[in-house]
Amino acid sequence: MKPTTLQVELGDRGYPIHIGAGLLTQSALYAPHLTGRIALVTNDVVAPLYADRLLASLGPAGSDAIRVILPDGEARKDWSSLERIYAALLAESADRKTVVIALGGGVVGDVAGFAAATYQRGIACIQVPTTLLAQVDSSVGGKTAINHPLGKNMIGAFHQPRVVIADTATLATLPPREFAAGLAEVAKHGAIRDLEFLAWIEANVAALVARDPVALEHAIRRSCEIKAAIVAQDERETGVRALLNFGHTFGHAIESALGHGTWLHGEAVAAGMVLAARLSARIGRIAEADVQRLEHLLAALGLPVKAPAITPERWMEFMGRDKKNQGGRITFVLLDALGRASVVRDAPDSALREVLAAA
Amino acid sequence: MKPTTLQVELGDRGYPIHIGAGLLTQSALYAPHLTGRIALVTNDVVAPLYADRLLASLGPAGSDAIRVILPDGEARKDWSSLERIYAALLAESADRKTVVIALGGGVVGDVAGFAAATYQRGIACIQVPTTLLAQVDSSVGGKTAINHPLGKNMIGAFHQPRVVIADTATLATLPPREFAAGLAEVAKHGAIRDLEFLAWIEANVAALVARDPVALEHAIRRSCEIKAAIVAQDERETGVRALLNFGHTFGHAIESALGHGTWLHGEAVAAGMVLAARLSARIGRIAEADVQRLEHLLAALGLPVKAPAITPERWMEFMGRDKKNQGGRITFVLLDALGRASVVRDAPDSALREVLAAA
Repeated sequence: MKPTTLQVELGDRGYPIHIGAGLLTQSALYAPHLTGRIALVTNDVVAPLYADRLLASLGPAGSDAIRVILPDGEARKDWSSLERIYAALLAESADRKTVVIALGGGVVGDVAGFAAATYQRGIACIQVPTTLLAQVDSSVGGKTAINHPLGKNMIGAFHQPRVVIADTATLATLPPREFAAGLAEVAKHGAIRDLEFLAWIEANVAALVARDPVALEHAIRRSCEIKAAIVAQDERETGVRALLNFGHTFGHAIESALGHGTWLHGEAVAAGMVLAARLSARIGRIAEADVQRLEHLLAALGLPVKAPAITPERWMEFMGRDKKNQGGRITFVLLDALGRASVVRDAPDSALREVLAAA
Repeated sequence: MKPTTLQVELGDRGYPIHIGAGLLTQSALYAPHLTGRIALVTNDVVAPLYADRLLASLGPAGSDAIRVILPDGEARKDWSSLERIYAALLAESADRKTVVIALGGGVVGDVAGFAAATYQRGIACIQVPTTLLAQVDSSVGGKTAINHPLGKNMIGAFHQPRVVIADTATLATLPPREFAAGLAEVAKHGAIRDLEFLAWIEANVAALVARDPVALEHAIRRSCEIKAAIVAQDERETGVRALLNFGHTFGHAIESALGHGTWLHGEAVAAGMVLAARLSARIGRIAEADVQRLEHLLAALGLPVKAPAITPERWMEFMGRDKKNQGGRITFVLLDALGRASVVRDAPDSALREVLAAA
């Protein structure tokens, strides 16, 4: 099957995104980017499913690959995983021509991407996302990071991959929670940028939840198109790229307050989008009916729409450390309408506290 | 006293280097670059000498600064120091507008610079080098890194500072070993790029060793000019910038084999330059007299010219992990003449082994 190919337009840092079933083992997609030895970074859940097949398809370069298998989960998106990658690369005398292949979900992509960004001050990386969340969001755009106990994604780098290879067949084996978590970011792309796409998601909830291949491929392609266009405009998030953080100010606080990995990222973002929508309505930017429409869609996609119990002090503590903040003010991404969002730095504290108190 | 100012020509990443006595407290040099709160990163030797004076000169922004004081020494150029900076920044909710001021020698500059490169995916950094080595070399060019037990500077990023402020008055208090270590990099700039400068150093050994201010300022300025020109040509070391690594292939191996911090970086580079010169002579690129001339100069500057006892296997192990290597071949920077160097990937193993055996 011929893949769909999009291009992230970033000049000499631009790259293709290939989307389709069975791409994992299409060696022709990797070949142009293999400038040196391969270092495959994956986790202990993904490795038994796909690591051998991927490397076997790459011939001698595959059998000669360095393999790094990390423990699964957001809780290990930290220095210990990074150090494991560095140690393996150094033990094998990996040089600057080495190419990291990040095979897995958002955690693997972020950690392996950050290792590639910093090993010997930067080596190449190929993203092979195997979760819906990674295929529609985290593998595209070059954001890499690890978590810090005091905040999500606080340590990281912008490091664009050489290519993204999204094999939609890998989604068939995803656990339901992981799958739903990815749909949260799909809905986010509609909510901030494309009302028509949001309506399409609403009309196709059943097909999406049933993992219908045609519906899924459309959802992934449209998400990647939206994200690629935003990244091309604002690679390092000095402006419009911040809109992709809709739901993330609240969401990151949920993840940090509960301990990274307790809620999945996409779950926290779903509950966070509902809170951000409520805050938008509370200060008169959108109607209450818009909030309900978004909340209804997220619930139908199998996502939590009610935040966990967190004291107002803890909310403020974690949101006070969000990367978008400036000069001590919490920065929010709020909706101007369904399909349109803005960065808001002057949301009144009283409105925020009311939204949190009712959460 | 009016500072000498050079410019590193890197387009929108370009920046000035100010050199002169008393610059540490000239607030006008900092002001254009203070876009947010200050985070001063220094070490426990430098802090009592200069931290209060520097911050006092910056007024309210100075008294409001976050302070991070690292333990002194190359042995702590590691994750633990980096983590200390991250934790302090997060505890104070430092945002993306925060400006790191790196006050100290090469270790502080490299660690603080790497923290700035990776905190929230990158914040601004001002380099205020207080050692000769940092003023003539490490504060300029944007290389940041920490060491790994398996290799020197193996984890890092390219992250250009916003300005370099080199106060030559701080050199008066440097311990003699530290001071001599800086002269090694001064001599290196002559050896690879400027025979006239090398001859000037030879003619001014006594003045330099006596820390004569006029001689020192010339040595610093000429070193920065040479380095800035090379960096402007090749920011990310895909070509000519590798020449600045003359002596470093052997030198890094010395540092790693003995444990980071046992020999100072400049000391290891001095002994490393002698070995690189011997290898150059051994394969007929320069004359034996050139080797002796360089060796004589380095000894006169108070530097070690004989490498410590390391077995050939250990030499090969550490040099085998050098960042310049490709495809399993050790890459050397060798002299074509005094004042001219080249990257050499095909030095015969036999010649290398003879040089090491005689070391």
